[in-house]
Amino acid sequence: MLLENTIGAIGELFPEPMAAAQSRLDSLIKPPGSLGRLEELAVRLAGMTGNPRPVINDRVIIIMAGDHGVVAEGVSAAPQEITHQQIPAFLQGVAGIGVLGKLAGTRLVVVDVGVAVPVDYPGVLQRKVRAGTGNIARGPAMTREEALQAVEVGIQVVRGEIDRGATLVGLGDMGIGNTTPSSAIAAALGGFAPEEVTGRGTLVNDEVLRRKVAVVTRALEVNRPDPADGLDVLAKVGGLEIAGLTGVILGAAARRVPVVIDGFITTAAAMVAAALQPRSRNFMIASHLSGEQGHRLMLEHLGLVPMLHLNMRLGEGTGAALAMPLVEAACRVINEMASFSEAGIADLETDKLLR
Amino acid sequence: MLLENTIGAIGELFPEPMAAAQSRLDSLIKPPGSLGRLEELAVRLAGMTGNPRPVINDRVIIIMAGDHGVVAEGVSAAPQEITHQQIPAFLQGVAGIGVLGKLAGTRLVVVDVGVAVPVDYPGVLQRKVRAGTGNIARGPAMTREEALQAVEVGIQVVRGEIDRGATLVGLGDMGIGNTTPSSAIAAALGGFAPEEVTGRGTLVNDEVLRRKVAVVTRALEVNRPDPADGLDVLAKVGGLEIAGLTGVILGAAARRVPVVIDGFITTAAAMVAAALQPRSRNFMIASHLSGEQGHRLMLEHLGLVPMLHLNMRLGEGTGAALAMPLVEAACRVINEMASFSEAGIADLETDKLLR
Repeated sequence: MLLENTIGAIGELFPEPMAAAQSRLDSLIKPPGSLGRLEELAVRLAGMTGNPRPVINDRVIIIMAGDHGVVAEGVSAAPQEITHQQIPAFLQGVAGIGVLGKLAGTRLVVVDVGVAVPVDYPGVLQRKVRAGTGNIARGPAMTREEALQAVEVGIQVVRGEIDRGATLVGLGDMGIGNTTPSSAIAAALGGFAPEEVTGRGTLVNDEVLRRKVAVVTRALEVNRPDPADGLDVLAKVGGLEIAGLTGVILGAAARRVPVVIDGFITTAAAMVAAALQPRSRNFMIASHLSGEQGHRLMLEHLGLVPMLHLNMRLGEGTGAALAMPLVEAACRVINEMASFSEAGIADLETDKLLR
Repeated sequence: MLLENTIGAIGELFPEPMAAAQSRLDSLIKPPGSLGRLEELAVRLAGMTGNPRPVINDRVIIIMAGDHGVVAEGVSAAPQEITHQQIPAFLQGVAGIGVLGKLAGTRLVVVDVGVAVPVDYPGVLQRKVRAGTGNIARGPAMTREEALQAVEVGIQVVRGEIDRGATLVGLGDMGIGNTTPSSAIAAALGGFAPEEVTGRGTLVNDEVLRRKVAVVTRALEVNRPDPADGLDVLAKVGGLEIAGLTGVILGAAARRVPVVIDGFITTAAAMVAAALQPRSRNFMIASHLSGEQGHRLMLEHLGLVPMLHLNMRLGEGTGAALAMPLVEAACRVINEMASFSEAGIADLETDKLLR
């Protein structure tokens, strides 16, 4: 019922605050539209939050961690134990997201929703649904019930964070091997060929890349996920952290809180969220274009345009962290810039000028 | 002599600190290269500054303001008085750069190097070389001597800021009509056709755009700037604020301080700086890809890749301000992330893994 209720609570953007935001932006001391996608973002934030002068204060990045049985196929160059070994570094501020999250002024919440071994590091939310997925090249990643549970973990975690005051939610992932199920999700839900959406992940050479494409192809053949059923795709070829992230997106959208997508893995979660509830896209903000093959296609499928082009492919929420100041910038523009009349400047008199 | 000495002082990137920075980055708890262009930027910053662990502290955006005789041709939709009317709004923090500069934690320095009317607003640096340029569609923008003076204003201003502690310099511009001379500079120095590098600037419709292309074409025919002589191009078809910005770039590069380019106008200044001293490109950082037609070509000509894709076209240094946190992020990564051995994590053993 939690998932069903959450999906039902996700609405459209509010048109009136969007119109008011657009009108305010057009009155500011700049040529109309000259702040480009920052202005478009400010208008969308008004539509999401209902506030014509949207404000971003407290922010959080929720990092879901899980392991993947498919690593048995040799699709990842990094050993599985990296998944749990990285977690302390997140919270100590010495991993990528630790450092960039601090710079972005965001809290980090790390959730074990499916790591293969016990994670007893202090501060980690213990929400393990199962200790790693099955090998999707041979069978389903998990049962439908487990997928549902993991999605509901995400919904509950993000609800808690919003109750604590979060006004902007970023997504992060940790899970060795998780580019492979993400590619499978992208292929299943986006209708892409496996080779279009399968990339090198971490340190993968040509031979391993060919193996990954074959594994994604096999995962789809063996499991036959139903593209009309997001939960089926998640259960059959997904991952526990991907399911958790799907829940975070849906939970935030249901509370009208904007969600900053990160890279390849979190965009796969966004595709599942959009499959479960297309309106959830209203609340998604794309941060960066990943260096991972296929990310551009996935974002296009969702109708999202990334702001940062940094060829990053680390995950962990690092791209989301870098984009948070841009979301804040959009809010600052609409709240802090003066209008022509407030500044006592000759208006551009657009009508006359566009002669 | 100041320009000549400055040009002579601009050097190559230092290879040893770059190698040390690369080696440090490769040891950090992430797949090598996975932070993409942030890592490349960290390495370049090491080469610029000589510090293998580069640090960005005090930062400044220098905004050069000037007017343009070519507005008489009807190439701009906005009235010329906007140039001086905007200046108080910069310093009061209510213009685009006022708001975004504050968010970026940067000081703003506003310089009147060529505004058509007296600018007596407190805090503005008075360095007027002449009250606006001549109409480049009919003759030169200024004399060679005036262009040199304006460049030297930029050198002196940035030297002062570096002496005050600036470790990162951003560029900003203000000058109604200044996309037209910037297009002329791009065409002259880049060998582009006027229509490739002439865009809509502020609120320009199709008819005005055609007029702008014709004006740029005429400016090049009437003045015949010598592409092998950057100062000649600047004097004949440039602008006073563009000359000042050229000086800022050269002056920062001579002191090995990184310079963040903004959009169309400041990239034209960067092309002049590169024409005067190709090594100045070593110290340039591209911030965003402007929505203005031709900016992509200009950046490619300089060998620079923008980080932000926001379709912005405001100028003032707004794109430079948004990119400053990314420069800081690059420094934070190299200084604050732990290595595999520091974090006690199993190394990725790249050699073995890339089997």
